[in-house]
Amino acid sequence: MSQTSPLALPLPELTPITGVRLGAAAAGIRYKGRTDLVMAAFPAGTSVAGVFTSNRCPGAPIDWCRAALKGGTARALVVNAGNANVFTGRAGAAAAKETAEAAAALIGCQASEVFIASTGVIGQQLPTEKITTALPALHATLSETGWSDAAHGIMTTDTFAKAATATATIGDTKVKLTGIAKGSGMIAPDMATMLCFVFTDAALPAAVMQPLLAAGVTQTFNNTTVDSDTSTSDTVLLFATGTAENPPDADTADFAKALTEVLHALALMVVRDGEGAQKLIRIDVAGAVDDASARRVAMAVANSPLVKTAVAGEDANWGRIVMAVGKSGEPADRDTLSVAIGGVWMAREGTVVPDYDEAPVVAHMKGGEIAIAIDLGLGAGRATAWTCDLTHGYIDINGSYRS
Amino acid sequence: MSQTSPLALPLPELTPITGVRLGAAAAGIRYKGRTDLVMAAFPAGTSVAGVFTSNRCPGAPIDWCRAALKGGTARALVVNAGNANVFTGRAGAAAAKETAEAAAALIGCQASEVFIASTGVIGQQLPTEKITTALPALHATLSETGWSDAAHGIMTTDTFAKAATATATIGDTKVKLTGIAKGSGMIAPDMATMLCFVFTDAALPAAVMQPLLAAGVTQTFNNTTVDSDTSTSDTVLLFATGTAENPPDADTADFAKALTEVLHALALMVVRDGEGAQKLIRIDVAGAVDDASARRVAMAVANSPLVKTAVAGEDANWGRIVMAVGKSGEPADRDTLSVAIGGVWMAREGTVVPDYDEAPVVAHMKGGEIAIAIDLGLGAGRATAWTCDLTHGYIDINGSYRS
Repeated sequence: MSQTSPLALPLPELTPITGVRLGAAAAGIRYKGRTDLVMAAFPAGTSVAGVFTSNRCPGAPIDWCRAALKGGTARALVVNAGNANVFTGRAGAAAAKETAEAAAALIGCQASEVFIASTGVIGQQLPTEKITTALPALHATLSETGWSDAAHGIMTTDTFAKAATATATIGDTKVKLTGIAKGSGMIAPDMATMLCFVFTDAALPAAVMQPLLAAGVTQTFNNTTVDSDTSTSDTVLLFATGTAENPPDADTADFAKALTEVLHALALMVVRDGEGAQKLIRIDVAGAVDDASARRVAMAVANSPLVKTAVAGEDANWGRIVMAVGKSGEPADRDTLSVAIGGVWMAREGTVVPDYDEAPVVAHMKGGEIAIAIDLGLGAGRATAWTCDLTHGYIDINGSYRS
Repeated sequence: MSQTSPLALPLPELTPITGVRLGAAAAGIRYKGRTDLVMAAFPAGTSVAGVFTSNRCPGAPIDWCRAALKGGTARALVVNAGNANVFTGRAGAAAAKETAEAAAALIGCQASEVFIASTGVIGQQLPTEKITTALPALHATLSETGWSDAAHGIMTTDTFAKAATATATIGDTKVKLTGIAKGSGMIAPDMATMLCFVFTDAALPAAVMQPLLAAGVTQTFNNTTVDSDTSTSDTVLLFATGTAENPPDADTADFAKALTEVLHALALMVVRDGEGAQKLIRIDVAGAVDDASARRVAMAVANSPLVKTAVAGEDANWGRIVMAVGKSGEPADRDTLSVAIGGVWMAREGTVVPDYDEAPVVAHMKGGEIAIAIDLGLGAGRATAWTCDLTHGYIDINGSYRS
């Protein structure tokens, strides 16, 4: 286990969600002496929405969840850490099905109402019998206060547990949201996997939640990057128990805002725990031809190894930011481009700002949170991306042999 | 200066090109105690073709060369190391013009027949007077045997000088090609810049050479990557003196082949000198829906930090290769995908190959040249990409402060 990230946040006080019972057990899938199997059970009538990796080689649990999502209802979630069940062929699909069936038998529901996620090493067969053996005892201990156990049980080489909570009103009804996430440490190491589960007592059908979740993920997780490598296991699931009994046709704007808040908080925790991260980097782009273009520029900067190594070296190297803007392929004009670091505009209109004040920039670069602002000077498009620096820690974590 | 790359090649014996006189001088632009200014002079009637960076924020020398290329003829090339003259505003454009005018006065030609390139730190004004002061003495020493001096004089933090030579026939006439290149070390550090200059005695008009050069670059430099960051200064120029007096309308196929050979050799030298590189990685993709798709898959693997750190760690981590194929967004089917390392097929048809022989793979990973093969099993599309591993050396080189 790596040292705790210097950007780690303490686990917040988590609001239980009426009807959601959860817990964790040590199934011995790969790790010794820690929990690695998490289960959550939901009351009948719980609806579900999901967003999954765009990777063309997804894991068997992704296939399972995509199919299950068509039903729109959920009664259980089973997550294991230590083995991602990715690129495991027909045996991998069978393992996903057996896990769901075992949980369904305990809950008394259809297997298609059980959602599953796996994270860890890829290309190795999931030891399904360890999961099915551990599930009955785990099921017997599920409780409405098991949040911290669940947040810890899904970690792989995460250096801190990640959770966030929020409230919203739908009509006059107050509803609660609590989410947990893991990422982006490595276990063996293999590939960065990101899992996020959000639970709410709101009464919202799957068809209403799905677009809210998709929009929230687009604004949050999809604007973050650690190393530009898209996992085969990325999963965000939203479960709504309906126990808050809000009116069915009320406005969901406040709920959508709270959901995005929770997703944003969890996404930033994943970046804060980015492999080897010493600094959190925020990149604000303005003046692009439109928002989509601004986002692509922001992500080009966020994914640039040269920008990220410069930040690791506490070097306010605006020239590399100019390079990354230029390589994005988006409309950009060197002669209207401005770059600021830590609020100080260092480059404007195609050249360095003469006599800009370097002292506050140097001080800013020594801090843990770095702010880069880019104004393209072309239009009203805006976007923000989040990433971390690229350090020796990343090489250490990913350059060591799996075994 | 970093230690010489373990993948370095010795400078080959270089064939002089009749009419091309070149040399290097120490102008003191940034470095002390080494040459940093290179000049080449060409006879009247020399034609020129060029390919430049796709970065939207190019340096002033790129703007100058693009405009000069319209004339199709060249009488001189001036290259400085230590300062890239990028993002330097109107002063940068003036510096490029002054440099070209100073060389033109010495040669007795139009400034628009002088091509220029700059490499090094960005965002700092080029000290043009150091160049114009050094040029007359440099011009007086130009010689047909100055190839090694020129190859060394354009280096920034390159750890070895890069040159290649070839011959071809056009009609019954034997023609010669000799090229030099620099990249992809950093000077201060700023951004990886790649410069390549090829010289031939062939008699070919600019309009004939331009498509041959563009095709050659597409097949060679454009299939290499060190760190996915596209420089603002990338330049490939081809100068043809015509002194070989080949027939004007003869077939250029053999010349195109030799040109691509020279470009390929130089491109691989740049990858061998990739920042921190310890291993050269070749990625062969077959079975894609078409060649363009195969190339995008190969480059996605070549640009994956997780694949590159695994190679650095001598870890035959085929799971990360599957991930990178999947994230490319290109047509790929997990269940028809096969991956080999060092000629051993480790993964086939959606799962690991049972009992593949690991010993030769482990031995292969300890070597300096790593071969990855991917068969998508979908069509006849093929491509090859080249990259290097991602090591602590990359972080050291790019994470240290510029000053």
